[in-house]
Amino acid sequence: MMNDMDRPLILISNDDGIEAPGIRELALIAQDMGDVYVVAPMTPQSGQSSAMTVNAPLRVKQHVAAGFGGNVKVYSVSGTPVDCVKLALNRILPRRPDIMLCGINHGSNAGNNLIYSGTMGAVMEACMAGIASVGYSLTDHAMDANFSVTVPFIKEITRRVIAKGLPSALCLNVNFPVGKVIKGMKVVRSAASHWSEEYREYIDPHGIPFYWLTGSQINEEPGATDTDLYWLDRQYATIVPATPDQTNVAAIEAIADVFE
Amino acid sequence: MMNDMDRPLILISNDDGIEAPGIRELALIAQDMGDVYVVAPMTPQSGQSSAMTVNAPLRVKQHVAAGFGGNVKVYSVSGTPVDCVKLALNRILPRRPDIMLCGINHGSNAGNNLIYSGTMGAVMEACMAGIASVGYSLTDHAMDANFSVTVPFIKEITRRVIAKGLPSALCLNVNFPVGKVIKGMKVVRSAASHWSEEYREYIDPHGIPFYWLTGSQINEEPGATDTDLYWLDRQYATIVPATPDQTNVAAIEAIADVFE
Repeated sequence: MMNDMDRPLILISNDDGIEAPGIRELALIAQDMGDVYVVAPMTPQSGQSSAMTVNAPLRVKQHVAAGFGGNVKVYSVSGTPVDCVKLALNRILPRRPDIMLCGINHGSNAGNNLIYSGTMGAVMEACMAGIASVGYSLTDHAMDANFSVTVPFIKEITRRVIAKGLPSALCLNVNFPVGKVIKGMKVVRSAASHWSEEYREYIDPHGIPFYWLTGSQINEEPGATDTDLYWLDRQYATIVPATPDQTNVAAIEAIADVFE
Repeated sequence: MMNDMDRPLILISNDDGIEAPGIRELALIAQDMGDVYVVAPMTPQSGQSSAMTVNAPLRVKQHVAAGFGGNVKVYSVSGTPVDCVKLALNRILPRRPDIMLCGINHGSNAGNNLIYSGTMGAVMEACMAGIASVGYSLTDHAMDANFSVTVPFIKEITRRVIAKGLPSALCLNVNFPVGKVIKGMKVVRSAASHWSEEYREYIDPHGIPFYWLTGSQINEEPGATDTDLYWLDRQYATIVPATPDQTNVAAIEAIADVFE
C-alpha cells in the first residue's frame, strides 16, 4: 500500500463559503488523488479579489466533514479566501501542500471577472507561495447548479498539474460553460471586458437613498478568437494562464522615456 | 478666465479612508490642476485589493471639505476603494473624469503589496474604465507621516499624465521612500517578494484561540537592479507600469501544448 507520505497533499478553498455545494464537488473529485484539506471562508466572499484581513482577528473552526468525502479534513476561517490560504499554510496544514484547488465556483470568473474574483485571489495567493494552483468555475450562479459535466475535465487538469506542476508565478483560471456538453478545452487569454455598471437606487424609510450594484458583463472584443469569453460562448472549457505579477513589463521602456 | 469646462476633472480616492491625512495632501496638490472630486471609503480599507461589495447596499455621504482645499467636493462611500470608483463614475461625478489619482497612501505598495493594495485596486478600476490613473504611496504607515518631500514629484507626474494621458490598460503604481531627500525617479517592475507570514495566536476569555496577521516583506531578488524594492532602498521614487489584465500571455502556447 501507498504510504500516506507518498500521497499528494491537496489544499482546497473557495469564495462561496464552506456551505456551497461546489466545494463539496471539488473535494469529492480530489479525495481519490491525495489527502485533502478544505479551508474555506465561513461566509460567502464573492468579489473579494485578493483582499486580506489586516485590522481584525481571525477565527478557525474545524467541521465534521459531511458531504466532503470520507478522508477529507474540513476547516472554516472567519475571513477572505486569501486569509484561508495564509492560515492554511501557516497554521492548519501538517506540511506544505503539493497543489491548491479552488472552487468549484458558482458563477463565471472569465473576462474581467478575474480581477474581482475571490476564487482567483486564493489561487494567486497559493501561486505566490510557490504552490501549483488552479481555480475552477462554472458559469452558473445557482446553488443547485449541475457540476457533473465538469467532473472529467477537472480530474484531467488536476491529475496533470499534480504530475507535472506548473511554472513558477503561473496559475490557471479554468471556466466551464453551462450545458449538457463541453466540446473541449481552449487555452486562451482573458477577454477585455467590463461591467455595464448600474446602481439601483432605493430610498430608505428615512428618505435617504442607498445603492446596490447590478449590471452585466460586456465583451469588448466579441470577434477575438483567442479569448475565454469567445470559447465559453461556444461550449468550450477555457484555461487562462494567470499571474499575480501585475507589472506591465512591456511598457517599462516607453514609460521610462517619459518620466526618468 | 478659463471656462470650468476646460479644466480637467480629477477624481481622487484612497484606501486609508476619508479621514486619512494623505488624501488631503493629494487634494491640495490637485486643486491647482483642475476641478477635484474626492470619493473615498468611510472607513480604512487597507489590503482590500480589487474587492467590491456585491451582497450589500452602499451609502454615499457628502462632506464639508475641511482641509481639502477650497474648491474640492468631498464624498465618502460605505464600501471598498473599488466601490468608490464605481459609484463616482456612475452616480457622483458630473461627467467622465480626465484623470484618477489615489492616495497618498500611508504605507508601501511596492513589491507584492501591489496585489493586496486597495489603493491600486481603485487605480486598476479606473484604468479598466479607460481613465488615466495613478496611485501614490509613501512607505511610512504613520498617520503623521511627512509628505512634503513627495509634493514636487506628485505635481510633475500628475501634470504629465494630465497632458499626455497613459496607454490603454496601463496605470502607474508610484512609491516614495521615507526620508528628507528623494534622489530621482526610476521606472521599474515590481520585485518578486513575499510576506514572512506569521499569525500571532491569542486565547480568548473562553479558552478559544484567535489569530492576527503579522510578518514582514521579503525581497526575493535583492540584487535585481530593475525592481521597485531595490530603488526605494536607495532613496529613489519608483514608478511601476501596472495592468489590470492578469493573463500570462507569454505562457499560453506552452500551456496549450499540455492541455489542448
